[in-house]
Amino acid sequence: MSTLGPALLTDHYELTMVRAALRDGTADRRCVFEVFSRRLPAGRRYGVVAGTGRLLELIQNFRFDADEVDFLRRTGVVDEFTARWLTDYRFTGDIDGYAEGELFFPGSPILTVSGTFAECVVLETLVLSVLNHDCATAAAAARMVTAARGRTLIEMGSRRAHEEAAVAAARTAYLAGFGFTSNLAAGERYGIPTAGTAAHAFTLLHEDERAAFTSQVATLGKDTTLLVDTYDIGQGIRNAVAVAGPDLRAIRIDSGDLAVMAQQSRDLLDSLGATETKIIVSGDLDEYAIAALAAEPVDMYGAGTAVVTGSGSPTAGLVYKLVEVEGRPVVKRSERKATIGGRKVAVRRHKPTGTATEEVIVPQGVPDRQPNDRLLQRTYVAGGEVATQPTLNESREHLRQCLISIPWEGLKLSAGDPAIPVTVVPAD
Amino acid sequence: MSTLGPALLTDHYELTMVRAALRDGTADRRCVFEVFSRRLPAGRRYGVVAGTGRLLELIQNFRFDADEVDFLRRTGVVDEFTARWLTDYRFTGDIDGYAEGELFFPGSPILTVSGTFAECVVLETLVLSVLNHDCATAAAAARMVTAARGRTLIEMGSRRAHEEAAVAAARTAYLAGFGFTSNLAAGERYGIPTAGTAAHAFTLLHEDERAAFTSQVATLGKDTTLLVDTYDIGQGIRNAVAVAGPDLRAIRIDSGDLAVMAQQSRDLLDSLGATETKIIVSGDLDEYAIAALAAEPVDMYGAGTAVVTGSGSPTAGLVYKLVEVEGRPVVKRSERKATIGGRKVAVRRHKPTGTATEEVIVPQGVPDRQPNDRLLQRTYVAGGEVATQPTLNESREHLRQCLISIPWEGLKLSAGDPAIPVTVVPAD
Repeated sequence: MSTLGPALLTDHYELTMVRAALRDGTADRRCVFEVFSRRLPAGRRYGVVAGTGRLLELIQNFRFDADEVDFLRRTGVVDEFTARWLTDYRFTGDIDGYAEGELFFPGSPILTVSGTFAECVVLETLVLSVLNHDCATAAAAARMVTAARGRTLIEMGSRRAHEEAAVAAARTAYLAGFGFTSNLAAGERYGIPTAGTAAHAFTLLHEDERAAFTSQVATLGKDTTLLVDTYDIGQGIRNAVAVAGPDLRAIRIDSGDLAVMAQQSRDLLDSLGATETKIIVSGDLDEYAIAALAAEPVDMYGAGTAVVTGSGSPTAGLVYKLVEVEGRPVVKRSERKATIGGRKVAVRRHKPTGTATEEVIVPQGVPDRQPNDRLLQRTYVAGGEVATQPTLNESREHLRQCLISIPWEGLKLSAGDPAIPVTVVPAD
Repeated sequence: MSTLGPALLTDHYELTMVRAALRDGTADRRCVFEVFSRRLPAGRRYGVVAGTGRLLELIQNFRFDADEVDFLRRTGVVDEFTARWLTDYRFTGDIDGYAEGELFFPGSPILTVSGTFAECVVLETLVLSVLNHDCATAAAAARMVTAARGRTLIEMGSRRAHEEAAVAAARTAYLAGFGFTSNLAAGERYGIPTAGTAAHAFTLLHEDERAAFTSQVATLGKDTTLLVDTYDIGQGIRNAVAVAGPDLRAIRIDSGDLAVMAQQSRDLLDSLGATETKIIVSGDLDEYAIAALAAEPVDMYGAGTAVVTGSGSPTAGLVYKLVEVEGRPVVKRSERKATIGGRKVAVRRHKPTGTATEEVIVPQGVPDRQPNDRLLQRTYVAGGEVATQPTLNESREHLRQCLISIPWEGLKLSAGDPAIPVTVVPAD
C-alpha cells in the first residue's frame, strides 16, 4: 500500500524513449497503440476483458508529482526538459476498447490508445499490468462459474495473492459471476457483497467445538455458517445442529474428500431435521474440482487460490503494440508474430438466433456490416476526458450474456480451440 | 492504487471472529500463530523468505480509520462494540521470524505472531498475502540467479503482473540477486537500480532504424543499449555500430532463437570491432531458458513473466495457523495435515565446513544446540514496537550466503527433494 500515484508504475525505458523523442521531434507524432493477445492460454476457449474500469480510474490520476519528478531527475532517468514535460503530463488522447466483460480471442484489439507517441507510450506498463492481471483472473473465474452450474460461488483467495492484486481479483471474480468475496477492501471500494464467518482458529481458541459454535450463534444468529471440520465432521455437524437447531443456515467443509463428505453431510443433516441447512465446500477448488462436484448435494463453493492465480494462467499474455504512426501502419518484422499494422475495427458476427459465429477484424477500415453484427469497440476516453462507463454490475451482466452467445463447445472446460474463429479481412 | 490503509486488506471472517470472541470473552486469550508451508512447490528444493520488510511496514500502518469502521458497521460486518475495538486497534504483540532472504523448507516456522487472539487474527490475510506473493516470486528469481552463473539479470516483468504486485516482485528479484529492475516505483520506494532504454515502438516511430538509433545515442550517449531486432538482427547490429561506433555499451535481442542469435551477434559485433559491446537477451526467459544459454556469449539476461508469476508457482502455499492458546498447544485434527501444535523454535545444523545438513524444529522447547547450529528466528516486533530490521541489501547478501551453504544438489533446477531434511524433535 502506498500513497503514491500510479505514474511510477512504469518501466524505465518508457521515459528514456520519451526523452529521446522529445529531443528529436518525434514525441508529438500521432500514434495508435493496440492491446491484444497473440494466443489464449493453452486450451482455453475464450478470454474475458476485465480491468478496464480500474484502468480508466488510474489513467485519470496518472500525474507525475514533484517528488516523483525529482526522483527521476536525481537518478538520471530523465533530463530537465523531460522533467518539465512530465510535470505537465496528462493524457489528452483517445481510448477505445471492448466492453468490460466482453469475450476476446487471439488478435482481438481489446483496447486502442491513440494520441501523441509520448503521451501514449508512458501508459504502456500500467495498461498491461492492469489488463493482464484482471483478464487472467476473470477468465479463470468465468470457467468456475460455468462449472458451478448456477450454484453460488464465494471468492476467498486474498491470502494467496499480493494484497492489492487480491482486491482486483475479488472484483474480477464478481464480474465473472461470483456472488461474494471474503475481501473487505473489495466490498468497500466496489460495493461487492462480502461474506465470511469463522476459521478453524476460532474453534481451536475455545474449550471445545460446541463452545465455539455457541459463541458464534450467540453473536451472529442461526443465519450463519458453522465450520464443522476442525475435528470430526460427523460430530461437528451434530454439534452444529445441537447448538443452532435445525434452522441453521449453513455448514462449511474445508477438507477431506468433498464429494463423499457432501453426501454424508447431507444425509446426516437431513436425519437431524436440518433439511434446509446449506452445505458450503471449500479447499483448493478450481473449475475442474467444482465440475466434479456437480452431482453432489453442495449448495455453495468457496474458491480462492485458483481464482487469484488464474488457474494455471496467472497472466493473460496481452501486449501493447504501436500499430500506426501519422496514419501509416507500422509493424515489427523480425519474426513471425501475428502483429498486423494499422488501427483495427472489430465486429462479432452472429446467427439470427444470436449465437456468435466469428469475430471479424478490419485493419484501417470499416467492416462490411451484416444484420447480426455487433460492433465491439466503444469510446472510453475522448480528448483526455473519460466518457461514461458501465457499472460493474452492468459489465457482469454483459459477460453473462456473452457466455450465452458463444457456441456451447466454447464453454467446455477441456482444452480446445477458441470458441469462434477470428478473421482478419481487408477493409471494403 | 488507493490511498486507503491496509486494514481492509482482510477477510470478512476475521472480523466476525473478533466480534464473537469479544462477546464471549475469548478475544484476550494469549495466542501464538505460525506461518509455514506444508510443502514446497512440486520439485522445488528450497523456499526463500521474502516480504518480511514490506509486511512490517504494513503492520505498523494497520489502523482502521473512521471511514473504514463506518463501512464495516454500515454493512453489518461488525457491531458497535467491535467497531469501537477496531477504532482503537493497534498491534501490541510480538512477531518473530526467519530473516528475510533465509531459506525455508516444509514446516519451517518462518513467522510467529503472538498476542491476544483478536489482535493476531485480524492480521492473517495481510500476513499471508504479502508472504505468499513475495516468497513465490523470490524463489523463482533465486533459481534464475543460480542459472545465470554470475551474469547480471534485469527484472522486467511489471507488465505481466498486477501493478502493485509488480513493484513487490521487483523488490524480491533484487533480494534474490537480480542487478536491476525496469520498475520505476521499485527504484523510488526501495532504492533498487532501474534500467531500460527503448522498445520496438521507438524504432517503429522513426523513419528507419538508423534514425531511431541516432536519436537514442544523441540523447543517451554510447553508454546505452540498442534494441536490434525490430527488423533484421544482422542489419540492426550493423546499424547500431555504424551509429554508435564500436564503443557502444550493449545491444539487446528480444526474439528469435536466442542461442543462435547470441553467437551470430557476438561474431558480427567482433568483426565490426565492437568487441566490448555487451549482448543482452530477453523474451520469456525462465530459469531453464537461462540455464540453456550458459555456454553462449550472453552478458546479461532480461527476465520478466517468469519472475512475477513465480515460474509456475505463483503462490507459496504458506498458511497462518493457531498453534497455541494460553500456553497450551492446539491442533486441527480432522485430517492428516502436518500441523504440529505449540510454538516452535528452529535451528539450522551445519557441518564444520559450513554446509547445512538439516533443519531442526522443536515445538514448545529449546533445541539441544550443537556447535555449528544457527538459530533461525529473530525478533521483529516486541510489544508492538518494530525492532531494527536489516536493509534490503543485507537481506540480499544473507540469501547469497544461504545459497552457498546448502548442499550443491540443492541448487539444481531439476525436480528433487528439499535441499536438507527438516526434523521435528521433542524439546530437551
